[in-house]
Amino acid sequence: MIKLQDIVAAQKVIAGNLHRTPLIGSTYLGNIVESRLLFKLELYQKTGSFKPRGVLNKMHNLTPQEKKRGVISLSAGNHAQALAYVAALSGVPSTLVMPESAVKSKVDATKEYGGEVLLTNEDLLSTTLAIQKERILTFVHPFDDPMVIAGAGTVGMEILDDVPDVDVVIVGIGGGGLASGVGAAIKSRKPNVRVVGVEPEGAAGISKSLVVGKPVHLDSVQSVADGLAAPFAGVHTLAYVQKYVDEVVLVADEEIVEAMRLIIERCKVIAEPAAASTLAALLFGKIKVRPESTVVCVLSGGNISHERLKSLL
Amino acid sequence: MIKLQDIVAAQKVIAGNLHRTPLIGSTYLGNIVESRLLFKLELYQKTGSFKPRGVLNKMHNLTPQEKKRGVISLSAGNHAQALAYVAALSGVPSTLVMPESAVKSKVDATKEYGGEVLLTNEDLLSTTLAIQKERILTFVHPFDDPMVIAGAGTVGMEILDDVPDVDVVIVGIGGGGLASGVGAAIKSRKPNVRVVGVEPEGAAGISKSLVVGKPVHLDSVQSVADGLAAPFAGVHTLAYVQKYVDEVVLVADEEIVEAMRLIIERCKVIAEPAAASTLAALLFGKIKVRPESTVVCVLSGGNISHERLKSLL
Repeated sequence: MIKLQDIVAAQKVIAGNLHRTPLIGSTYLGNIVESRLLFKLELYQKTGSFKPRGVLNKMHNLTPQEKKRGVISLSAGNHAQALAYVAALSGVPSTLVMPESAVKSKVDATKEYGGEVLLTNEDLLSTTLAIQKERILTFVHPFDDPMVIAGAGTVGMEILDDVPDVDVVIVGIGGGGLASGVGAAIKSRKPNVRVVGVEPEGAAGISKSLVVGKPVHLDSVQSVADGLAAPFAGVHTLAYVQKYVDEVVLVADEEIVEAMRLIIERCKVIAEPAAASTLAALLFGKIKVRPESTVVCVLSGGNISHERLKSLL
Repeated sequence: MIKLQDIVAAQKVIAGNLHRTPLIGSTYLGNIVESRLLFKLELYQKTGSFKPRGVLNKMHNLTPQEKKRGVISLSAGNHAQALAYVAALSGVPSTLVMPESAVKSKVDATKEYGGEVLLTNEDLLSTTLAIQKERILTFVHPFDDPMVIAGAGTVGMEILDDVPDVDVVIVGIGGGGLASGVGAAIKSRKPNVRVVGVEPEGAAGISKSLVVGKPVHLDSVQSVADGLAAPFAGVHTLAYVQKYVDEVVLVADEEIVEAMRLIIERCKVIAEPAAASTLAALLFGKIKVRPESTVVCVLSGGNISHERLKSLL
């Protein structure tokens, strides 16, 4: 498993290349849960989500030969954009396997960043691995990779540096890369800070994996939070969540949407559903916090088309 | 007319009480106009718009006796919230005359801040002045007051401090208070910086006033940008715009809405239509800028309910 020094190393890799994202508070929303409530705005990160942190750290650790041949991954959205962006930044060719059903704006953004997009109706993972083998590319996993996890951990470092008195950090869980990294960073430095993960009811891969003690594949996922709709838990991420995350709670789609509306009206920022899940868990009582606590909700991304936003509001 | 020193004094009044708002850039949107494009995020100001800057400066300059009796104004939205907020901050009673048709969320917010709200179907101004006389209150004009203009000018000071190489500043015009203050601040310090005002086609009070050379009252206003739908130009603000604003351009409602969508998708922030008008003017060619220019669009506010946002997207 990665150590604190790996996350510190990742901080150095991303410094100057990616944003150190700001935190904002909301007195109104904080009052509802009798706490000091802050949002970590990863939606302002390059490409609109936290994803390039892990990808850039992974890219930095590739050999010159691997870089020359190029990278590949699968994604319906944020990871694809992040990999295409970071690869272009590093002068590395990138191939992104995306589902035919992917949102057009995300496909377009990935192409704009310079990625080669392959759309498929077949199984994403097997398609990706077949092309990887054929073209001898390096597979950059969306979440289940120690270097990707270390990169995501930089979010936790920034929270601790900016909010030294933080009591609770809430983070969404899809594949679990962000929760793994944030948990590792925070528990390594301040074990008393509580780290809570949030999954959608319709994509509870980590929750189910925690019950059976090994990574579970879901037959189907159904959630408004496309960013959290990973069909399986990672081998690595499950181990990190077991070790570093205090609890994982579930939220319903309508709770996520209500939280998204409140963030828009009160904070004037666009949190995509995956991000809003953190506030949803707090507002709808899935997470109890002591009065006067300092709570940080990580808003992991803000990539949503205006058409989809309209349909959700 | 106010002098630079009045705006500097206003800066001291608001420091510590209101936010010094950040700027963000958008490479994507900047590329469209071949410029470096920045947004001044007044939507993150207290109460969600730039309005408290002017109101707080005005409040600071009231006598103890005036403060004790209280303040009154008329507004359908942002000014009402700002006055209620600042009055509460200063321990001053506030009365807000709002139209029966005002958006419920803005009425509620004004009450939450501690303002007494009087809803009326009658003429707003005459109703307000009648109550002012009866209760012996101080009228805090939404825009046509030198102290309010000086407060708004602090936005211009912050832009010059944060973007010393700015070439063009674009600001929306309703009654003209923001454009007056920003224009005065910028032209007093750097006369070569171009200041452009933007009005909606359906509420072109200042444009029409500039033509005839005196403040015009509009028989009706019709714009998606409720924050710019002032039914008349101010005596003061017209003089400031004549002196300090290089040009005033018009934008159509559909251009404003398209700009709002782009700001949401690309910058992840909620700009209300009045704010998005600045980008609309730039994107739709109403303002020509030299390639490689540094352009700041002031995003004046972000107060919009999720229901209304849904209807516009």
